[in-house]
Amino acid sequence: MISGMQRRERYHVKIGSSNPSATASAIGVYLAGLLEDLRADETGSVATYIPELGKADPRAFGICIATVDGQVYSAGDFDLPVSIQSVSKPFLYGAALQYCGRERVLQQVGVEPTGETFNSIVLDEVNNRPFNPMVNAGAIATTELFPGATPQARERGMVDWLGQFAGRQLEIDLQVFGSEHATGHRNRAIAWMMLNSGMIARDPEDVLDLYFKQCSVLVSCRDLAVMAATLAAAGRNPLTGLQVLGPDNVRDVLSVMSTCGMYDYAGQWIFDVGLPAKSGVSGLIMAVAPGQAGLAVYSPLLDAVGNSVRGIEVCKRFARDFALHSFADRTDASSAIRGEYSAREVSSKRIRSPAEATVLQQAPPELVVLELQGLLYFGSAERVVRRVADLAGRVDTLVLDFKRVAMVDRGAVGLLVRVLRTMTGRPRIVLTETGSLPPESGLIPALEALPEEVRPEFLPDTDLALERFEERVLETSGVSRRHDKLSFAALDIFAGLGPEALASLQSAVSSFRFETGQKIISAGDEAHAFFVVARGSVSISLTQGGRSRRVGSVGPGQAFGEMALLDGGRRSADVTADVPVLCYAFSVERIRELAADRPEILTCILGNMIVSISDRLRRANQQIQAMG
Amino acid sequence: MISGMQRRERYHVKIGSSNPSATASAIGVYLAGLLEDLRADETGSVATYIPELGKADPRAFGICIATVDGQVYSAGDFDLPVSIQSVSKPFLYGAALQYCGRERVLQQVGVEPTGETFNSIVLDEVNNRPFNPMVNAGAIATTELFPGATPQARERGMVDWLGQFAGRQLEIDLQVFGSEHATGHRNRAIAWMMLNSGMIARDPEDVLDLYFKQCSVLVSCRDLAVMAATLAAAGRNPLTGLQVLGPDNVRDVLSVMSTCGMYDYAGQWIFDVGLPAKSGVSGLIMAVAPGQAGLAVYSPLLDAVGNSVRGIEVCKRFARDFALHSFADRTDASSAIRGEYSAREVSSKRIRSPAEATVLQQAPPELVVLELQGLLYFGSAERVVRRVADLAGRVDTLVLDFKRVAMVDRGAVGLLVRVLRTMTGRPRIVLTETGSLPPESGLIPALEALPEEVRPEFLPDTDLALERFEERVLETSGVSRRHDKLSFAALDIFAGLGPEALASLQSAVSSFRFETGQKIISAGDEAHAFFVVARGSVSISLTQGGRSRRVGSVGPGQAFGEMALLDGGRRSADVTADVPVLCYAFSVERIRELAADRPEILTCILGNMIVSISDRLRRANQQIQAMG
Repeated sequence: MISGMQRRERYHVKIGSSNPSATASAIGVYLAGLLEDLRADETGSVATYIPELGKADPRAFGICIATVDGQVYSAGDFDLPVSIQSVSKPFLYGAALQYCGRERVLQQVGVEPTGETFNSIVLDEVNNRPFNPMVNAGAIATTELFPGATPQARERGMVDWLGQFAGRQLEIDLQVFGSEHATGHRNRAIAWMMLNSGMIARDPEDVLDLYFKQCSVLVSCRDLAVMAATLAAAGRNPLTGLQVLGPDNVRDVLSVMSTCGMYDYAGQWIFDVGLPAKSGVSGLIMAVAPGQAGLAVYSPLLDAVGNSVRGIEVCKRFARDFALHSFADRTDASSAIRGEYSAREVSSKRIRSPAEATVLQQAPPELVVLELQGLLYFGSAERVVRRVADLAGRVDTLVLDFKRVAMVDRGAVGLLVRVLRTMTGRPRIVLTETGSLPPESGLIPALEALPEEVRPEFLPDTDLALERFEERVLETSGVSRRHDKLSFAALDIFAGLGPEALASLQSAVSSFRFETGQKIISAGDEAHAFFVVARGSVSISLTQGGRSRRVGSVGPGQAFGEMALLDGGRRSADVTADVPVLCYAFSVERIRELAADRPEILTCILGNMIVSISDRLRRANQQIQAMG
Repeated sequence: MISGMQRRERYHVKIGSSNPSATASAIGVYLAGLLEDLRADETGSVATYIPELGKADPRAFGICIATVDGQVYSAGDFDLPVSIQSVSKPFLYGAALQYCGRERVLQQVGVEPTGETFNSIVLDEVNNRPFNPMVNAGAIATTELFPGATPQARERGMVDWLGQFAGRQLEIDLQVFGSEHATGHRNRAIAWMMLNSGMIARDPEDVLDLYFKQCSVLVSCRDLAVMAATLAAAGRNPLTGLQVLGPDNVRDVLSVMSTCGMYDYAGQWIFDVGLPAKSGVSGLIMAVAPGQAGLAVYSPLLDAVGNSVRGIEVCKRFARDFALHSFADRTDASSAIRGEYSAREVSSKRIRSPAEATVLQQAPPELVVLELQGLLYFGSAERVVRRVADLAGRVDTLVLDFKRVAMVDRGAVGLLVRVLRTMTGRPRIVLTETGSLPPESGLIPALEALPEEVRPEFLPDTDLALERFEERVLETSGVSRRHDKLSFAALDIFAGLGPEALASLQSAVSSFRFETGQKIISAGDEAHAFFVVARGSVSISLTQGGRSRRVGSVGPGQAFGEMALLDGGRRSADVTADVPVLCYAFSVERIRELAADRPEILTCILGNMIVSISDRLRRANQQIQAMG
């Protein structure tokens, strides 16, 4: 705890320090401009009914914005510590919800706006509770619910609780507390009245002590903006990453702020600004743009209702200039499907023979990938499930790629579960890339709890889903799968060579076996031979920035390392056996010798290589098209 | 106009018809389940203070949801026409805002919740206006503002106005109107009281006539869901596409619905359901999930406050099951940047020589593309401008690709304008693919109004931005740009051939000139020659589904149509001259003849082709990686 005098001195040291963000960014420049514009407005007056508040500098003026990912923009006296006063009420209400549960809290205090002033003594006698937790009576009732075995534990807990929202340890201003305690007769009257009607049960002086202390906690605009941003970020402090308040409790707090946060100015406030907000008589206002940012303003000149004059004007302008009103149209449901492509447009990274490729291009049972993105909530998920239902009758496998999905909310999870229930297992549904979804989305447990016949499959990536689908299609087609050792004549790279040329190639070949995981080619090595897979399959991978990435796979009958046929090459990638592999290795030097007599050996091989690479280029361009 | 009896008969014909959507979709199944669950609840009673309302079937129960893109899900008596009653109030308030302007409307009626019942006679005597437009007094005041020269014109205008929200022509139920008119004494008292205090100026009987008629307009749940969806879609009817109400007026209507729409249940409603809503004494409730959907419920059993018992329960469950609460966390600001890549990772479709490609890979002045997506509003645009500011000092050109941006709201436009103002023209900012942005976003006019030194460039597509950047880099580099006619020795496809081989190729070549736009190759033609560009450039395009798409371009020294060297090929793409072009054409037949003597001619050309195609494949794979 520090005294008011100590605080002022510390502040005077700070005010000289520059604020880099105010000049470095467009938003900082905007806030500084807003501050200059509104500084001239000297209407309103400093609150005087608590003596300590009357000492505030009427010229003081600070603004701060904190985004849900922790970016802070500020201007003016953003760092000046002042007592939080009534702006503490939403946070204490949150504590009550978190520690006592919604039902218990609703017994203690209602959620109806009163249209009365903040220090009104009118109580909801029908339900025997104060009307709402944003007026003093309601906040006193909320304060009684704050947990802790002793007054000291409750005080420490309360200061810590507010500090978790601010992202730093806060302190009580003892002079403000003394002033509140000495002069808070009206609040004392309210508390005794509530004890009288059984709305509170504990000693009113004890409850009031904590109530006055919570009003006397010192925060700067910067602290308050971070506190508001924590509410904007569904209860997760953007600076510390701590989940301070559960998302459902945040929703309840914001609801009450939106109807009761600005005293008897609530209707006009929602009409003009449209953001959940709370003001306090020290001249602070905080506003929350859910999912976006928290805003805090400090200017101690108050209007007749008790709201900061400049603070209200900053909120109005900020909400107007950046279209932040809660009911401004901004949800974009159409973009939940980032892209859609079929297995005909995009193939797996497995390199296929022309015969296999033809089968895959012509196969009727379709696989379709829906690449999802952003946040899935009811409106966006409805479009996804509608597309799923459209495709259901026409495809064999439907892959939902979650790579770019940031969050699946409870509403979307419910909708997906309902849709899968109606689908009776056809088509096959595969979810890929769900690994990076935040665990609180609850998607995976909800889907895994489905009955087996409608439960979807989970695969780490979409390429694997494509490869498995292709393998299934090929297995049931008539095309040769080359499970056995192959003859030269069956190799695509030798297609078109006559029997004599094939026979002469026998002198250039050796066969090799590799175990699962064994490296066959290392990037950077000199290239003397090219390979053809006779049995098994190999993976081609590139290492970039220390991370190895699989870029393709090669199965029976297909070549790898064939760029060795061009002079001076070094290996460009690593090749590793996926399973036990049998390979033919062809000596490049020996083939060049043979080609001196039979030039068609080389021109034929090079032509086949061109066909194969061109085909891969064509498919890559198709994929770019499908993804773009 | 039809009478109540006619209506009932028509309905009885309709009730037998099946509702395909209820069984065909998961949401339809959900609604049918909700209906079955809640049908058992027979608490509440049918309104009787207007005799005609007392005739409603207490068992009637319908639910309907309409999405912002016009998908309709429904269950039960969703098609039963009933009088709209107070649910007309938000729409008439919207008409007043649209026709008279916000300022005039606020003089006539306030926006503060009263906490009183809907037919309260309490008026705001300080401001000399009813408290808000959702109670009868306020709605009568709003009705006075409805435009039209005669009572008949106003009546016709009012019915048309409501019909524009419903997407079909509506009608007044004369029996309900007669009943309202005969028994609406309390409303008559309110109107005379308001005339007495100057809150309205026109003949009260005249105003009440239109007021009673608007209450008597017949709507089904389906109509009402579409009306709500029109509000959810920022005023654009999702069935007709008509912009019925301006987005700013929609915001104001939703604000008032959120604080005053559910009578003295407003605080608890926002707490429990959290959606702007309006109920009526006929048993209708409509709720709006902005940007997502409209919901309508009909069940005439009312609670003591005058809200439909089952209607409230449906709204509560629907909002809970699909997390539709206004303050449920769902905005996803992180996904506004769909992807980011530099000109080193993705090159233009212009085919480059190895020397040019090397220059481009090594060039220090960077171009970075930010692919944007979804809706740009303050929170999402803030991340974009933050990234722009991060990159500003490091890059030469910054491309903002708007291809996947659905909408840029006023807040995001303001932010972009402010950021560009601070940037003083460095780096070069290029906006691409802005062509499909809805005109109401106002982005283009706002940016074009910027001073010339900070005004960004607009280009139709990102490929063109990449190509122009590459051309600039190449022009200032030392690399030969081959503006003049080239010698054979300088052609990449012949790289490595000796002087004698090059000399013998003279017998295989002819040169051709093509005018701008002239077709050089047509897809499907037999391929007898391949070409090398000597001067100018050509575009390669594919026609798919009747639409031609440019897939690449070829400049001096580069070959096209070279797949002709492989046997039996037909042209796979169209090639057209971009500018006046000089080409070498090489006869494939003649080259094969030459290769019989000098096999290295063919193997060398094929090898160069492999290098070129492999390079393009490598770049395509890089692009897939960068886009993925």
